[in-house]
Amino acid sequence: MAQLGPYQLRQLIRRNDFTGNTSGFAQGCVQGNIVILPKDWANEFLQFCQFNPKPCPLIGMSKSEGDFSLPALGKNIDIRTDIPGYRLFENGVLKQELTDIKLLWRDDLVTFVLGCSFSFEEALIADGLEIRNITENKNVPMYRTNIACKTVGRFSGETVVSMRPMLAKDAIRAIQICSRFPSVHGAPIHFGQPELIGINDINTPDYGDAVTINDNEVPVFWACGVTPQLALERTKPPFCITHSPGKMLVTDIANSTLAVL
Amino acid sequence: MAQLGPYQLRQLIRRNDFTGNTSGFAQGCVQGNIVILPKDWANEFLQFCQFNPKPCPLIGMSKSEGDFSLPALGKNIDIRTDIPGYRLFENGVLKQELTDIKLLWRDDLVTFVLGCSFSFEEALIADGLEIRNITENKNVPMYRTNIACKTVGRFSGETVVSMRPMLAKDAIRAIQICSRFPSVHGAPIHFGQPELIGINDINTPDYGDAVTINDNEVPVFWACGVTPQLALERTKPPFCITHSPGKMLVTDIANSTLAVL
Repeated sequence: MAQLGPYQLRQLIRRNDFTGNTSGFAQGCVQGNIVILPKDWANEFLQFCQFNPKPCPLIGMSKSEGDFSLPALGKNIDIRTDIPGYRLFENGVLKQELTDIKLLWRDDLVTFVLGCSFSFEEALIADGLEIRNITENKNVPMYRTNIACKTVGRFSGETVVSMRPMLAKDAIRAIQICSRFPSVHGAPIHFGQPELIGINDINTPDYGDAVTINDNEVPVFWACGVTPQLALERTKPPFCITHSPGKMLVTDIANSTLAVL
Repeated sequence: MAQLGPYQLRQLIRRNDFTGNTSGFAQGCVQGNIVILPKDWANEFLQFCQFNPKPCPLIGMSKSEGDFSLPALGKNIDIRTDIPGYRLFENGVLKQELTDIKLLWRDDLVTFVLGCSFSFEEALIADGLEIRNITENKNVPMYRTNIACKTVGRFSGETVVSMRPMLAKDAIRAIQICSRFPSVHGAPIHFGQPELIGINDINTPDYGDAVTINDNEVPVFWACGVTPQLALERTKPPFCITHSPGKMLVTDIANSTLAVL
């Protein structure tokens, strides 16, 4: 299974033969967060992403409303079926979890694909750095901060961050490596004292699991793809579909091609 | 005076009309640390620099022994006269401070020019970051660490670091900017807890002056050009000439051309 290419994996997902988390599958390929909105909300969301590129790095979107393909991201992608799990929100409230959204599809829907931390974690591991949430087999800890996103129309909110503890020398290397990948959250936005960005208890993440932080390490914080979900919860569009956490769109794009240098 | 170009400044220095610190002069131009050694020590020192590029970033050297010009670094440079102050060491002991070394010159001498922090400080300031030692009009604080240099022949020693306190977000930006300048010490090598690199009292630097560190800041540490001087003190070559601290070789090279990307 772990050896499957992205196209083969999407075919399994399409037939509901794979409905699990995509982490660790189709290694080397970009995975993306999904947000699907009606046209009358899509333009504002697009601008929100453009003005908040670190938490909301756009790596792809529908060519036109109603189009469920994403040819730039992978062969024959059908966004209505090729995600292992979807969430339907109405007025900001989670209504349903589904494995396909063919019956919900509408001609006015626009799909957004946002970069995710899997890509930069792979680059850090390739460089010999330890990623604690992976070593401890946990979900990465995530926290709401007091760092405001730039407001665009109806969209606003605080930045959510993910945290990985590191030795300072590894954090410096991580900053260098992640700076090459602006479309998957880029360089960290903070390290060290959590209270300076409004995190009161580092051992109680708002999402995901706590991980060990050793005395000689600092917590390093990256802007996180949960940020747009928080903005959507607050903004409460009448209709919105996202992927279920951990169940991402697996694309045909090599992670390495996201490097800007 | 501050408007003088590097060539004009070197002419004043050559005539001993300028014998002060070069910091702040010929802005935009690379300044270098100088080490002059006899041929039978030069090869080992060259290798020491090559294996320890962060504290000893070589930006130029004599084309051949006895040659006192450095055409790649500046028009008509005469290394015997174009530094505001020199130090003569014999067997590791400081013997004399001089304003030229024409009478000491020998046909077996090899000149090494090493990059200095002025170049990256200029890049950081241009980006809007505060450099505390400049704001407080002090020499940058420097510390001996427990980070061993790679030993090459008779040369060994610990890495000396310079320290600049910063907000975490500014430190992240400084890491990005300095990574572009490997020939002027490159990215920091540590931040945060000083004791992890063998510094017991951050308020008592081994060289330079203490600077204010605010509660919301972390100390950020760069490999420092005092490192080779410490190695030379320890190795005690029978004959060695360096620049006097703060009295650098002013070259014709633009700082920006040192950026590798």
